[in-house]
Amino acid sequence: MTGKLTVVGLGPGNAAQLTPEAATALDAADAIFGYGPYLDRVPERPGQRRHPSDNREEIQRAGLALTDAAAGANVVMVSGGDPGVFAMAAAVCEALEHGPAPWRELDVAVVPGISAMLAVAAKVGAPLGHDFCAISLSDNLKPWSLVERRLEAVAAVGLVIALYNPVSRARPWQLQRTFSTLGGCLPASTPVVFGRAVGRRDESVTVACLSDAPDIQADMATCIIVGSAQTRIIERAGRSSLVYTPRAASSHSS
Amino acid sequence: MTGKLTVVGLGPGNAAQLTPEAATALDAADAIFGYGPYLDRVPERPGQRRHPSDNREEIQRAGLALTDAAAGANVVMVSGGDPGVFAMAAAVCEALEHGPAPWRELDVAVVPGISAMLAVAAKVGAPLGHDFCAISLSDNLKPWSLVERRLEAVAAVGLVIALYNPVSRARPWQLQRTFSTLGGCLPASTPVVFGRAVGRRDESVTVACLSDAPDIQADMATCIIVGSAQTRIIERAGRSSLVYTPRAASSHSS
Repeated sequence: MTGKLTVVGLGPGNAAQLTPEAATALDAADAIFGYGPYLDRVPERPGQRRHPSDNREEIQRAGLALTDAAAGANVVMVSGGDPGVFAMAAAVCEALEHGPAPWRELDVAVVPGISAMLAVAAKVGAPLGHDFCAISLSDNLKPWSLVERRLEAVAAVGLVIALYNPVSRARPWQLQRTFSTLGGCLPASTPVVFGRAVGRRDESVTVACLSDAPDIQADMATCIIVGSAQTRIIERAGRSSLVYTPRAASSHSS
Repeated sequence: MTGKLTVVGLGPGNAAQLTPEAATALDAADAIFGYGPYLDRVPERPGQRRHPSDNREEIQRAGLALTDAAAGANVVMVSGGDPGVFAMAAAVCEALEHGPAPWRELDVAVVPGISAMLAVAAKVGAPLGHDFCAISLSDNLKPWSLVERRLEAVAAVGLVIALYNPVSRARPWQLQRTFSTLGGCLPASTPVVFGRAVGRRDESVTVACLSDAPDIQADMATCIIVGSAQTRIIERAGRSSLVYTPRAASSHSS
């Protein structure tokens, strides 16, 4: 089996945040698979096949890419951000495990990228500077009760929380419920950072406190970081505020 | 105030994983500060001052860099991995908040990098493919009791756990205690990934199960990913195993 499948992280969406390793993999590909808007970020190259697909078709997309690689092609699957964080690397592993036995002989590689939470955190300072977690608010693949149990557990022990997939047309209420749940565990003044399309032309970053967070717009392109009770905002005259979580924590940080 | 301080993430340590944004910031710097071994990764450039410092001197190092920037220089502070994840961005914010008032007028920026957990995860597949957290095992700046409370809380709700700063000469027992604590909450078969110096010449990656994890060597250059009860290992004849956490979870995933 000579084919290869490389799952490549495109980072936040600008060329300056795409690693040389990712660029090299994209250059060498015979075929590129991915969600349409991510594929659109990759310049077209003569002789390179392109296979855009819709959102929410991850397993089918992974299967098509593995089939192509098993036929001998050098295939790349693109992901926004990092492919290992709520993205295509897990879907490819899933499809591979449950697919035809020869797929296991394939050369499969993952090229990491700058994930959304790292890009958003960098924009405001260091909100992830202490222990933190990343939780997807999508209840397409897990029950909402589990999401709530996780939110309560991590807030109770003082972890900063990066929220992925906060809102979609099919999931309109989950984010508001999240703020309400966290409002029961964290001070109203807890800093919350909204980063939308960070690293792209239409980037916007908003810093609010938890009690005002429900009024801030968010969509699927938004990554939200909810601080802990330790997270601080540094106000600066004539400059945007910095948000950071100190490296130290006391035993009351829970 | 015309000076600038940019905290730059060098990624795992090879040039192919350094973003163009980070390379541009390094090129433009008048002075570069950082922990010696990280600074050694940056090629010397005529006219550029270099200020290596020892480990564990983060706040002092941040203060020196801010002082240099306040005097008008274009200063870069380098960090391994991502500067926002258990690294220099939080230390710079801390020093800035508690330092002289004019420091708040400085142009401060953070350039994200590929963090160790993303690089380690990419090496084996997608162990961070579902909800996860990052916890530092260093109890220099927080009490060990808080670390244990956090480990128990996140394991109880099924988060995958990336462990940073697992072991040092001054902290020899914390990692073993961690495995023992997690052994009380997770199946003995839970996959554990040890990634040492990933992305560098002396890279090594080991996959074990939780009950065997105490026998695997680790040091300060190791990032460890402890799976959840859902995390799976795909054995492959003639190829290294893949480790991934499925995107779906049931309400029993806790």
